[in-house]
Amino acid sequence: MDAGADPHHGRLLIMGGAAGSELLGRFVELAGSGAARIVVIATASESPESTESAYRERFAGLGAGDVRALRLAHRAAANAPETESVLRAATGVFFTGGDQERITGVLGGTATDTLLHALVGEGRVVLAGTSAGAAVMSATMIIGGERPGVAADSVRTGPGLEFLPCVLIDQHFAERGRLNRLLSAVARYPHELGVGIDEDTAILTGGDTFEVLGSGAVTVVDAGAATDIRVPPAGPITLAGARIHVLPAGCTFHLSGRRPGTGPPPEREPAP
Amino acid sequence: MDAGADPHHGRLLIMGGAAGSELLGRFVELAGSGAARIVVIATASESPESTESAYRERFAGLGAGDVRALRLAHRAAANAPETESVLRAATGVFFTGGDQERITGVLGGTATDTLLHALVGEGRVVLAGTSAGAAVMSATMIIGGERPGVAADSVRTGPGLEFLPCVLIDQHFAERGRLNRLLSAVARYPHELGVGIDEDTAILTGGDTFEVLGSGAVTVVDAGAATDIRVPPAGPITLAGARIHVLPAGCTFHLSGRRPGTGPPPEREPAP
Repeated sequence: MDAGADPHHGRLLIMGGAAGSELLGRFVELAGSGAARIVVIATASESPESTESAYRERFAGLGAGDVRALRLAHRAAANAPETESVLRAATGVFFTGGDQERITGVLGGTATDTLLHALVGEGRVVLAGTSAGAAVMSATMIIGGERPGVAADSVRTGPGLEFLPCVLIDQHFAERGRLNRLLSAVARYPHELGVGIDEDTAILTGGDTFEVLGSGAVTVVDAGAATDIRVPPAGPITLAGARIHVLPAGCTFHLSGRRPGTGPPPEREPAP
Repeated sequence: MDAGADPHHGRLLIMGGAAGSELLGRFVELAGSGAARIVVIATASESPESTESAYRERFAGLGAGDVRALRLAHRAAANAPETESVLRAATGVFFTGGDQERITGVLGGTATDTLLHALVGEGRVVLAGTSAGAAVMSATMIIGGERPGVAADSVRTGPGLEFLPCVLIDQHFAERGRLNRLLSAVARYPHELGVGIDEDTAILTGGDTFEVLGSGAVTVVDAGAATDIRVPPAGPITLAGARIHVLPAGCTFHLSGRRPGTGPPPEREPAP
């Protein structure tokens, strides 16, 4: 993977939900394995206690040196000095799934939000998230929309926490058939690159590139190339000339260049 | 619509299922309205009698001069001289929904198959189909596959009746979230242009172009532009650099040029 000069600078591991041991283990490894100090934030979850303990057990089982939960149930906690000290000691921070608007509502603009951006920017923390914890990574996040069809009202979006700019992330992508809503979103906001991540699949960012990990694929929808986009308030959208890439593990994507990398051709083309 | 020199030559009206009065009425009109002699073929249906009578009533209500059902339950019927005379008198032929493999199994290679190609090619008949009746129009048709994910085993295909060459049609497209299987199909067969038709939506072919009609959209997936395609026997497909177009009513598509036409820009861009 071409990850720029410092491959550990600003690393984000963004998972599409239902992550298995390969992906969670990769997070533990990136955080330092036996030397890892992992902080689990289950703010998105309706039942944070059980979510926290499940991930604590999981990460410990995968060899993490230290795993603790940071319960941020309200904005006061996200602005508390104790929270800052826990995060400053961390090498990896993990956002669980649940409701993405709980994360942005509780953390948005707090000392935790600011500190996490600094720690990730300095390469001192690997930031990971799954499902709702993945959605909040982008500048614009998908909040909802399960209607079929490519239309303005097929998707609802709102501001995310902006760790990964110029990208709009969707999760549980193939499993929930969400290409229509991602197409709807990028037709409305062609500045954003649409990135749909399947379950047990992740993107790992490094520099201006991401790499695909896991058992599924990442679908990138690029409306930047579109020759015509029309988004009526009601009824179907027109989107002509967009690009689409389906990228399984091992593929890379250059973000600002909007270019996929699929690696060298295989020795012999597999029969379809 | 730019439909070539003779816009009535080889017209196909291909509907994505659940067609409303606008689309069915357009078929009646293309077949000659009061002078229309429409033949309904419900071979795909498990209960042809009720399907036939529903469409007979529907087309009569929309002003068709004459509507009759042609019951082709087995290959002998599709090779019978009486069948030929019924079809020779028709101005419009309509294939209902059901199981597309029943149509190809009963009609494939019969005198009816050959005659329909001749009548359509000479512009003497408008050929319409909905759902399974749409699937059989293309050279390669989708038979099944509802698994999520873009993978070789996410779609099963087989030969269609080849009225519209170089195209692979899918139906109930947005409603059943079928973009994954259409992507899987064109990744395997990039020669075919993937055309996904929503319910109550149709393409009307004329010359080398089709026009979109109805309340939904037609999604065209063009893997011809892809820079890399890898289809492993199992696991996710790699498809880099494909093109996608979402085209509602009024848009056109130039088939051999693989180019969408979205018409002149609106007077004023609608707010997204």
